[in-house]
Amino acid sequence: MTIKVGIINVTGYAGSELARILYRHPEVEITAVTGRSAAGKRLPEAMPHLWQIDLPITSAIEEPVDVVFSALPSGASAEALAPLVDQGVKAIDIAADFRLRDPEIFNRAYGVEHPAPHLLGSAVYGLPEIHREAIKTTNLVANPGCFPEASLLALAPAVREGLVADDIIIDAKSGISGAGRGGQSTNIMDQYSEANENAMAYGLNGHGHQPEIAQEIADLREANSAKVTFVPHRIPMTRGILATCYAPLIDETMSKQAVWDMYEEFYRDEPFVKVTPEPPQTKHTLGSNFCLVHPTVDVQAGRLIVVSCLDNLVKGAAGQAVQNMNLMCGLPENMSLESLALYP
Amino acid sequence: MTIKVGIINVTGYAGSELARILYRHPEVEITAVTGRSAAGKRLPEAMPHLWQIDLPITSAIEEPVDVVFSALPSGASAEALAPLVDQGVKAIDIAADFRLRDPEIFNRAYGVEHPAPHLLGSAVYGLPEIHREAIKTTNLVANPGCFPEASLLALAPAVREGLVADDIIIDAKSGISGAGRGGQSTNIMDQYSEANENAMAYGLNGHGHQPEIAQEIADLREANSAKVTFVPHRIPMTRGILATCYAPLIDETMSKQAVWDMYEEFYRDEPFVKVTPEPPQTKHTLGSNFCLVHPTVDVQAGRLIVVSCLDNLVKGAAGQAVQNMNLMCGLPENMSLESLALYP
Amino acid sequence: MTIKVGIINVTGYAGSELARILYRHPEVEITAVTGRSAAGKRLPEAMPHLWQIDLPITSAIEEPVDVVFSALPSGASAEALAPLVDQGVKAIDIAADFRLRDPEIFNRAYGVEHPAPHLLGSAVYGLPEIHREAIKTTNLVANPGCFPEASLLALAPAVREGLVADDIIIDAKSGISGAGRGGQSTNIMDQYSEANENAMAYGLNGHGHQPEIAQEIADLREANSAKVTFVPHRIPMTRGILATCYAPLIDETMSKQAVWDMYEEFYRDEPFVKVTPEPPQTKHTLGSNFCLVHPTVDVQAGRLIVVSCLDNLVKGAAGQAVQNMNLMCGLPENMSLESLALYP
Amino acid sequence: MTIKVGIINVTGYAGSELARILYRHPEVEITAVTGRSAAGKRLPEAMPHLWQIDLPITSAIEEPVDVVFSALPSGASAEALAPLVDQGVKAIDIAADFRLRDPEIFNRAYGVEHPAPHLLGSAVYGLPEIHREAIKTTNLVANPGCFPEASLLALAPAVREGLVADDIIIDAKSGISGAGRGGQSTNIMDQYSEANENAMAYGLNGHGHQPEIAQEIADLREANSAKVTFVPHRIPMTRGILATCYAPLIDETMSKQAVWDMYEEFYRDEPFVKVTPEPPQTKHTLGSNFCLVHPTVDVQAGRLIVVSCLDNLVKGAAGQAVQNMNLMCGLPENMSLESLALYP
Repeated sequence: MTIKVGIINVTGYAGSELARILYRHPEVEITAVTGRSAAGKRLPEAMPHLWQIDLPITSAIEEPVDVVFSALPSGASAEALAPLVDQGVKAIDIAADFRLRDPEIFNRAYGVEHPAPHLLGSAVYGLPEIHREAIKTTNLVANPGCFPEASLLALAPAVREGLVADDIIIDAKSGISGAGRGGQSTNIMDQYSEANENAMAYGLNGHGHQPEIAQEIADLREANSAKVTFVPHRIPMTRGILATCYAPLIDETMSKQAVWDMYEEFYRDEPFVKVTPEPPQTKHTLGSNFCLVHPTVDVQAGRLIVVSCLDNLVKGAAGQAVQNMNLMCGLPENMSLESLALYP
Repeated sequence: MTIKVGIINVTGYAGSELARILYRHPEVEITAVTGRSAAGKRLPEAMPHLWQIDLPITSAIEEPVDVVFSALPSGASAEALAPLVDQGVKAIDIAADFRLRDPEIFNRAYGVEHPAPHLLGSAVYGLPEIHREAIKTTNLVANPGCFPEASLLALAPAVREGLVADDIIIDAKSGISGAGRGGQSTNIMDQYSEANENAMAYGLNGHGHQPEIAQEIADLREANSAKVTFVPHRIPMTRGILATCYAPLIDETMSKQAVWDMYEEFYRDEPFVKVTPEPPQTKHTLGSNFCLVHPTVDVQAGRLIVVSCLDNLVKGAAGQAVQNMNLMCGLPENMSLESLALYP
Repeated sequence: MTIKVGIINVTGYAGSELARILYRHPEVEITAVTGRSAAGKRLPEAMPHLWQIDLPITSAIEEPVDVVFSALPSGASAEALAPLVDQGVKAIDIAADFRLRDPEIFNRAYGVEHPAPHLLGSAVYGLPEIHREAIKTTNLVANPGCFPEASLLALAPAVREGLVADDIIIDAKSGISGAGRGGQSTNIMDQYSEANENAMAYGLNGHGHQPEIAQEIADLREANSAKVTFVPHRIPMTRGILATCYAPLIDETMSKQAVWDMYEEFYRDEPFVKVTPEPPQTKHTLGSNFCLVHPTVDVQAGRLIVVSCLDNLVKGAAGQAVQNMNLMCGLPENMSLESLALYP
Repeated sequence: MTIKVGIINVTGYAGSELARILYRHPEVEITAVTGRSAAGKRLPEAMPHLWQIDLPITSAIEEPVDVVFSALPSGASAEALAPLVDQGVKAIDIAADFRLRDPEIFNRAYGVEHPAPHLLGSAVYGLPEIHREAIKTTNLVANPGCFPEASLLALAPAVREGLVADDIIIDAKSGISGAGRGGQSTNIMDQYSEANENAMAYGLNGHGHQPEIAQEIADLREANSAKVTFVPHRIPMTRGILATCYAPLIDETMSKQAVWDMYEEFYRDEPFVKVTPEPPQTKHTLGSNFCLVHPTVDVQAGRLIVVSCLDNLVKGAAGQAVQNMNLMCGLPENMSLESLALYP
């Protein structure tokens, strides 16, 4: 019994990446893809690199599907998904709409009223390394943001095991595809000539991924809140996130090796997290669903430093979404996700 | 019965790309990988992005294999392969050593005496779109150079069908990985800071791929020689070749549509060549085994123009080699090669 | 007596590059800068890298100036310049509006009726290496397109001296800034993630720079027309044009050295053209007003090959415009243009 | 009276950048340039982009000069400079040899015995924004490292004015040219294909710039030591450093505006530091001698965040060195350094 899948907004970067991954999934058939300005075209006209997937782009999912992914912008996404979820379709939201449990925090972070607050209670935060069992039994998964994905995988072991104080700094660097496609065309900074050979911090007045990280860190600490400074940066590459995380060690004398061993133990059975002996490189994850994590210690300062990296469009978006779908559908977790990184 | 495969010089770009592709091949097991300076290490130490393939790197193939790939530099490659070929192992040479039928032309092009001229007679030029049947029955395939692969797929239909005069210009642009790895470290131009944001022509006094292209073009014309100007360029990207080919039409009034239809017909059944309606982009082939070909006509000048592109490490090297292996072993031609391009 | 200068459309790449160069010109004061959507802002608000030039951006030149540059898109440019030219202001048009002598060819190439055909007769094509004396005495200069600038400097010696037949191919590669800024935001291909690590041909159905090149080549040949195939390509770098030009030698036995000597002689006294002994690199011109030219011969094919390169925003636009202004104003030709290239 | 200048090791990136800047300095003549492997060639043979500076490359400074710059690697630099300094030549060392006052710390940081400890007492740390008066009267300036330059300009106001506690984190991102040229060829990570589209942290076990930063921060605090975590990262661009600095505010309620005003006041008269209203971009400094500094506050965490950027080869090396020379020679501080940034 093939699983029928729909992709809402296939023409963005996350949407087309879903199509790329699902095209080869042995248990899945993509039966519907939607777009906004591209509705009415065939998929290969809008995305020539997907010429093998010759489907019509419609403006909405018109036939029943078993699973739906939404890669719409935040706000629009919950609106499109709500009726499908209400009908019992399994849904994975790649937007931010179901990540924050508190609709008021959502409102402050994204500047819009939450369009489907009645679904917040049943949504599960789709980070299998922390919430695997809950993902298996829900019908609505909130796929993590790309920065939170990298940050939480870097910090979860240390926070859950109580290694660090409540004072975390995350300095994250993202490739430009993280800013999305098309709709961003008013943003001059996505233009090649200005993004190329350029680096900058942004979001210094607050970024939507900060409350998402803080919510999960607080949970891991079993606390009500968490002190987290999060500064995202844009660096000139297409894909990839590198997160460098800093936190004071409770035991300032803890050795690098002890920290590393603890991380290795924590992630021993995870199919998509690798604790690396050397500082990881974003390019070692290109096109793959792996997250690489490297913990170490600044001995002089008694500070934990963890560097993590992943491909923001795979483990940070579409690959993570397929991993969640596999869990929701009782399939092997790594189905269609085993590709090694493309290097160089 | 799993096919045992050895990769000679796995630590170069073509060699590690072979490992990436073969790792997921359902009929193959990589049982031996060799290196030069990295011999003695485990593969993941030398190539961290291949941590899933935890094999020892040896200095030579030590156990029997069914198929061997060589990704050594030209000259060294034939030397390493000859004894294996003589033992009956199926061999695919990614270097240039068996591409030119005439050892004197090889000598002029590569500056070394041919180390195994006795094997030249049995070697088949590994371009399945032209030599598929011969590939199926040989034990020694000379995998095409990356530039010839793109150029010949662009020109084969027009030359074989007699559309153009014997006066061809190929202006080819390659990403920097085409220059290889490591051994090139004396070449300052491979350094990031000098290759980045930089473009240049090279090989203006003769490039080893010119006689290879000329040999095959002459064959397609059923002539003894061919007039081919070939100018390679380096452009600042990691992977990808774009070849723009120019030739005078015999019938200067031939329409774009007629040319396009002929190309479409020529490649109709090819699994890895796509004739595109729009000028192709190298990024539409990234990480995939496809070659995109777009023929058109400069009507004012009566000139055929064909633009083709491919990923130089896949269809231009390792992917083409696996395609050849599949043919030599009687497997489905596209096995392990179906991945869509990674975009963006 | 300081020369008062106005820049129309300072917020594009050519306009802001003019501001950068003119800011340090000892005989010039920038007194007016205009913009479209940015009108009403200060220049540093719109272009933070020009914070030292704290001028208001107006929607039109409001005070008298001695010299005006227009960096508007084609069509709009002639409209904005015509009244100023009619008032006797010296004008340099960086758009294409006054490059083609024949308004019908302009119409075909740019799809708009020429807005000021009465000025075409007095406009001089602003390539000093060919038209220096005429530039000195005109009030209206048509600054060359970036591709024609590189192509004509590559070909002028061979064509004027009658070395080559009437059968020229120009394969040109441009960085992405050649596509302009802002107004191009509907063009998804200017987005970083899609332009990066990507190369493609375009303009295969005709490009506005082809008739411009053909007009000047025909003039150099003292002929009514010229057979010129021109294929532009986009390559992933911000600045730089590399043009590779091919033409059959009349005397097929002419040596590389003889051709090189002829070129060296032709450009001996030119302040901004350098005939190079090795194939030139675009990065050797970054930020400078130099054009590098390297002629050679494909001996087997009896073909002249000339590779040239320049910075498309300097010698291909703003620097060339300042060079023209210097000539029009009787100033030393290289004033404010002596900067060496930024490398690496 | 023209100042005669020698450049030791002109063939590296800092050395050739010195030549570029000094070539146009109105009070300076470059009279000697040295190289190692390139000794015996003319400068344009080794560095084609400097064809206008047709000097012989010698293996040592052979004729008397007034000022000498050394761009040798650390260790070798002090050895080459010591005899010249002893003769009274004004010397500016771009290497690290005279930056650390304590030769033992130098030994630990760079793994070599200090070759000229007798000169450490007279060397001045060449950061004019902090040590301007001392620079004017010394004969030996230790030009700051590129990371310390960016970090100290970001932190000096806050540290000197006592705004922050002794607990600083510097997360710095550098373009690849920071790794130097040529001598690094054994470092595969400088190869284009591996550095491109890649980001990573490094130096996690200690980086030579950490004690340099700590020394100066301690001085600014008038303390004996400083707690500074410094993590450098490589990002895929040629030039540019972006430093993001974090420190706890003593007064956690201090406003962004108050901090910004204090920074603005601190740097009001500095010719090469600009406090920016928006987060700065590395590209806004390309090829210029400016450092951009943007202070802000994470209000929730009571944390100062300062982002700074500069061109690592100009304000981070050669430009800073010329600025120091101007001060040492009594010339206007900005002479030959007024170029605006090249953008885009």
